[in-house]
Amino acid sequence: MNLVLIGYGGVGKAFIKLLIDKHEKLKSEGLDIKVRGILNSKGGVVSSNSLDLREVINVGLLENHKDWRTGINYRDILMKEKCDLMVELTQTNKETGEPGLTHIKYALENNINVVTGNKGPILVDYEGLKRISEEKGVSLGVGCTTGGALPSLNCGLLDLAGANINKVEGILNGTSNFILEEMESGLSFKEALDKAQILGIAEKDPTLDIEGYDTAIKMMILSKVVLKKNIDINEIKIKGITAVSKEDILKAKNEGKRYKLLGKIECTGNETSMEVSPILIEKENMLFNINGKNKGVKYYTDTLGEITVIGGASGTVNAAASILRDIINIHNGYKF
Amino acid sequence: MNLVLIGYGGVGKAFIKLLIDKHEKLKSEGLDIKVRGILNSKGGVVSSNSLDLREVINVGLLENHKDWRTGINYRDILMKEKCDLMVELTQTNKETGEPGLTHIKYALENNINVVTGNKGPILVDYEGLKRISEEKGVSLGVGCTTGGALPSLNCGLLDLAGANINKVEGILNGTSNFILEEMESGLSFKEALDKAQILGIAEKDPTLDIEGYDTAIKMMILSKVVLKKNIDINEIKIKGITAVSKEDILKAKNEGKRYKLLGKIECTGNETSMEVSPILIEKENMLFNINGKNKGVKYYTDTLGEITVIGGASGTVNAAASILRDIINIHNGYKF
Repeated sequence: MNLVLIGYGGVGKAFIKLLIDKHEKLKSEGLDIKVRGILNSKGGVVSSNSLDLREVINVGLLENHKDWRTGINYRDILMKEKCDLMVELTQTNKETGEPGLTHIKYALENNINVVTGNKGPILVDYEGLKRISEEKGVSLGVGCTTGGALPSLNCGLLDLAGANINKVEGILNGTSNFILEEMESGLSFKEALDKAQILGIAEKDPTLDIEGYDTAIKMMILSKVVLKKNIDINEIKIKGITAVSKEDILKAKNEGKRYKLLGKIECTGNETSMEVSPILIEKENMLFNINGKNKGVKYYTDTLGEITVIGGASGTVNAAASILRDIINIHNGYKF
Repeated sequence: MNLVLIGYGGVGKAFIKLLIDKHEKLKSEGLDIKVRGILNSKGGVVSSNSLDLREVINVGLLENHKDWRTGINYRDILMKEKCDLMVELTQTNKETGEPGLTHIKYALENNINVVTGNKGPILVDYEGLKRISEEKGVSLGVGCTTGGALPSLNCGLLDLAGANINKVEGILNGTSNFILEEMESGLSFKEALDKAQILGIAEKDPTLDIEGYDTAIKMMILSKVVLKKNIDINEIKIKGITAVSKEDILKAKNEGKRYKLLGKIECTGNETSMEVSPILIEKENMLFNINGKNKGVKYYTDTLGEITVIGGASGTVNAAASILRDIINIHNGYKF
């Protein structure tokens, strides 16, 4: 399989390292991945055979590679190097989807499979991209965009094939998990947030995480990919964890319960509605124990019962592994 | 897709009903299943177009169908009706695998995909069958054989593609779950077992369930399919729930813990070992809340973290839905 990687940030680097570590095993299983090119926004390195990935990692910055060139057109590389699959990991722009959207569209239109961890293009035009991929008979793997290593989309697509999904609940925001847990241990919201920021768990501007938008965005992607339903962000009731007081949390703890920031999609007939809010969860609920960096999704179905999938620690290695998972499933014939 | 069903017991009937219910939806998604034949051990009904499934269900016993014939050779039907996929649901024989083993082998050898819920052939010769399916480029879907609706094998194969699995823990026996829960509520083992038998949860001879053999068998299949490792039943340390006293259980309850019958596979280097025993589980463990008819499997991996999948209520409808799941994934191109 000839592969081109566009976007060489944290996940991109972890992905190249993973390909080195897994190369022998994958090859023994019939998947010989040849990386023909790695591009970033300024240029890249290309090989008409296969890049020496150890060398790429060893030089650190891509710009330090002996074969570094600027002004490379990704279109030429995809076509000239007979690329079978493009991995798109450029920076996310949730408003325009660019530059990922253009990259992905071009690849699919030219019969090249795509695997991406970039939420932007999926939010902006998953439907359009999916249509192209179906017309061209190639795959668009987006498993990494919702929960990373947690197989939230895989579960909805593959593990629930044939079942109607009536409801989905997702705990998908690690920062909120962390802050709520710290508040259970007695910290105030401010103290918990400070701690999360010091530990690098929360961002400098934590609004997206603590106000529920990150969860909403992940659930919107899940809805697009698994349920084939577009939900407008303006139609989602979104309440973040700032709506819960320390008193609420300690009272819940005394009752053996726990608050979690929950994204919920309900499907009734043709109607699909979504809500994000901190919800009191009983200890018998499968979602009760999702803590730390773990995430979880619970699907309610007509014929397969309730299926919950939990886990998938966060991190660049785990995200990279979820990119590789999509690649292997595409190699094994699955049409995403 | 032309399909032949061999074996028409509880799951077989539920499968035919499911095909009726889901027919329009599947067709709209590009999967038009035509059932060309349904056979049981005495004979069957066959159509060179597609059987009227409502009529099949309405007559009750297959023998009452107007086109019922005895002495049908399944080989002739598979070949004459240009069968794309055989569903094998004959009675399980864990010693010989027959008659399923012969049925499945014949279908695979003749380039026909197979989906089965029959543990016998998988226990006796999964490796041999898999080899034939790979040679012939067809699929052998066995998702139903380990936990039914719970996507335990799917998760290991598809959701963990590319990861090394270091350990697997499974709670896969509903009867043991039920008895342990009832004992937590104060019943003695004998009372809990009686209740399970009255409710039809436990069989008349409950040995396989309560002595851990059922769990061992399911974990053996998981090991064969997901880990590609055969573990001999004589090399498995097996202890059933009869090893736990009511006192143990109540003491655990007081400490906020709980006993569960756990199957555990550990993989270190090339060594794979398995154990089945009642284990004390802390309430922070994802497996703590698996109760009632639910089941769960937890995978420990190198690059995707710990992934736990829980759910999949038992019953013929759920088992049938897991057969359909494999069929849809095969239709979508996945090579099991």
